[in-house]
Amino acid sequence: MKKLINSPDNVIADALKGIAASDKDVRVDFNNRVIYRATPKEAGKVAIISGGGSGHEPMHGGFVGVGMLDAACAGEVFTSPTPDQMLAATTTVDTGAGVLHIVKNYTGDVMNFEMAAEMAADAGVEVATVVVADDVAVQDSLYTAGRRGVGATVLLEKIVGAAAEEGADLAAVAALAQKVADNGRSMGMALTSCTVPSAGKPTFDLPDNEIEIGIGIHGEPGRHREPIADAHSIAEQLVAPILSDLDFTGAPVIAMLNGMGATPLIELYLMYGEVIALLEEAGVTVERNMVGNYITSLDMAGCSLTLVRADDELIRLWDAPVRTAGLRWGL
Amino acid sequence: MKKLINSPDNVIADALKGIAASDKDVRVDFNNRVIYRATPKEAGKVAIISGGGSGHEPMHGGFVGVGMLDAACAGEVFTSPTPDQMLAATTTVDTGAGVLHIVKNYTGDVMNFEMAAEMAADAGVEVATVVVADDVAVQDSLYTAGRRGVGATVLLEKIVGAAAEEGADLAAVAALAQKVADNGRSMGMALTSCTVPSAGKPTFDLPDNEIEIGIGIHGEPGRHREPIADAHSIAEQLVAPILSDLDFTGAPVIAMLNGMGATPLIELYLMYGEVIALLEEAGVTVERNMVGNYITSLDMAGCSLTLVRADDELIRLWDAPVRTAGLRWGL
Repeated sequence: MKKLINSPDNVIADALKGIAASDKDVRVDFNNRVIYRATPKEAGKVAIISGGGSGHEPMHGGFVGVGMLDAACAGEVFTSPTPDQMLAATTTVDTGAGVLHIVKNYTGDVMNFEMAAEMAADAGVEVATVVVADDVAVQDSLYTAGRRGVGATVLLEKIVGAAAEEGADLAAVAALAQKVADNGRSMGMALTSCTVPSAGKPTFDLPDNEIEIGIGIHGEPGRHREPIADAHSIAEQLVAPILSDLDFTGAPVIAMLNGMGATPLIELYLMYGEVIALLEEAGVTVERNMVGNYITSLDMAGCSLTLVRADDELIRLWDAPVRTAGLRWGL
Repeated sequence: MKKLINSPDNVIADALKGIAASDKDVRVDFNNRVIYRATPKEAGKVAIISGGGSGHEPMHGGFVGVGMLDAACAGEVFTSPTPDQMLAATTTVDTGAGVLHIVKNYTGDVMNFEMAAEMAADAGVEVATVVVADDVAVQDSLYTAGRRGVGATVLLEKIVGAAAEEGADLAAVAALAQKVADNGRSMGMALTSCTVPSAGKPTFDLPDNEIEIGIGIHGEPGRHREPIADAHSIAEQLVAPILSDLDFTGAPVIAMLNGMGATPLIELYLMYGEVIALLEEAGVTVERNMVGNYITSLDMAGCSLTLVRADDELIRLWDAPVRTAGLRWGL
């Protein structure tokens, strides 16, 4: 295993030190492993937290900041944070207007966020929850009842973050979050496995001449394996299942072509060129896009495509200023 | 070779399609393989171009936009663009105030940019040139007389881009560029080789249990190889040669902890934590930083550290708004 780490046991603690040192706009609670905005949100505005297993950086810690999250809980690699972490984040960020929990649909995350919400309610904090389940690859999965939550989470965090910043109340923020979740779809693929530091060896074996279509962000099995194919053919296998699952025509679409962690940007741009050509052929109009590493899977090589069927209001919220380590414009 | 490409022959052409589709603020001249701002700079302001071999994305094409470059020439992978490409870029972006060429110190790039500058002069365009040679790893190298030009190029493009946007004249922009070049130092390391698409196999062999300290961005040999070490020890080997080459105390410093293309962000943050601790011990004050993939080497895993010894004026220009695919804030 070749990684820039000190010890498999200290990866999260050490990485949090680097995050704290590099982003002056956040502060890190090292005991609870929660990343907060350095300057809390104004009183009366809805706060938003998310969290999940580490290994998907910049998600979620890199999305803490003005216009996006108020806090993010970092679990061990590919392991849900605990309810205690989520409770600490929730009670700390609440300004009195309530807190939205953004949860990716994995059994451990869903269960722990549910418990944290109950504990927060006992502490007098109103919590609403959205569960993101946008991965069209498989219905149930290794760690999931129902679809896995993947890339749409990033776009959702940006959009609802803008609405909360504008002063929307908890019911409105939660409804907006559900709308984005309902209108987001993703599909991913892997060229290689990832290696969890504590395991020290690849999560799965993928022969040198094969790729896996429909991979999950923890290396969960996808739909099938096939011989290494050209970018055009891979793009077809990402686009087709998404478009057959939801109608993306007749609305402005936000697209994310995401790298899994070890994919160079030149390949992501190349893939985006293939994807956009297919979307145009299918009559889909991409109004906003991002190409890069946003929701990764450690050192996995591969990519995923996420589309959100938007409307003028979602596009307006998308364009609103954001200032985080992982996503920034207008500030 | 596992890559998201259609054919080794079409990598640049296909990637340029994706860049054109994803960034509405640039337009791509596919014949000359030049990326321009979609909206040219106002008349009377100095224009800035750069360019080099492809495979280092987002550099340089991802740094075209307001506050940074006016155009970037894309060569084949790890191969200098031609003088014709550079001439096309130079004459197109000139507003009458002259053009700065930002050149990384590689024999082919230096020669071709010199030729392009002469041709531009014949065409009546005033050109100034800065050659960046910031890599402290080796004195001469595989493709270089003198030091290699690496990470300081990114920081230089941002800083001089801001000055040109403010209306500084060509002599002032060129002097500023030289000042940044003189005050920038870098050092890199690799966990793995990269694979050039047309070669189809790794550029060099690096055993599973070894790393290379002082690597170049084309896989050129570094200082030495050693058994895989912990992040702290690697950080020491990046920081020490930089600090022994230039005094970084007593001034605000801009730091970049850069990924080589296949390094996950969690490892880059972890490395930044190690680096900043060493810099603080050495009395170096980092006032601004970035952590991420900015000057890559295809699918190489590894990282590099760049420091620029700044002053209040450089920090002010660093903070100025920038809007490019690869670097963006304030706009």
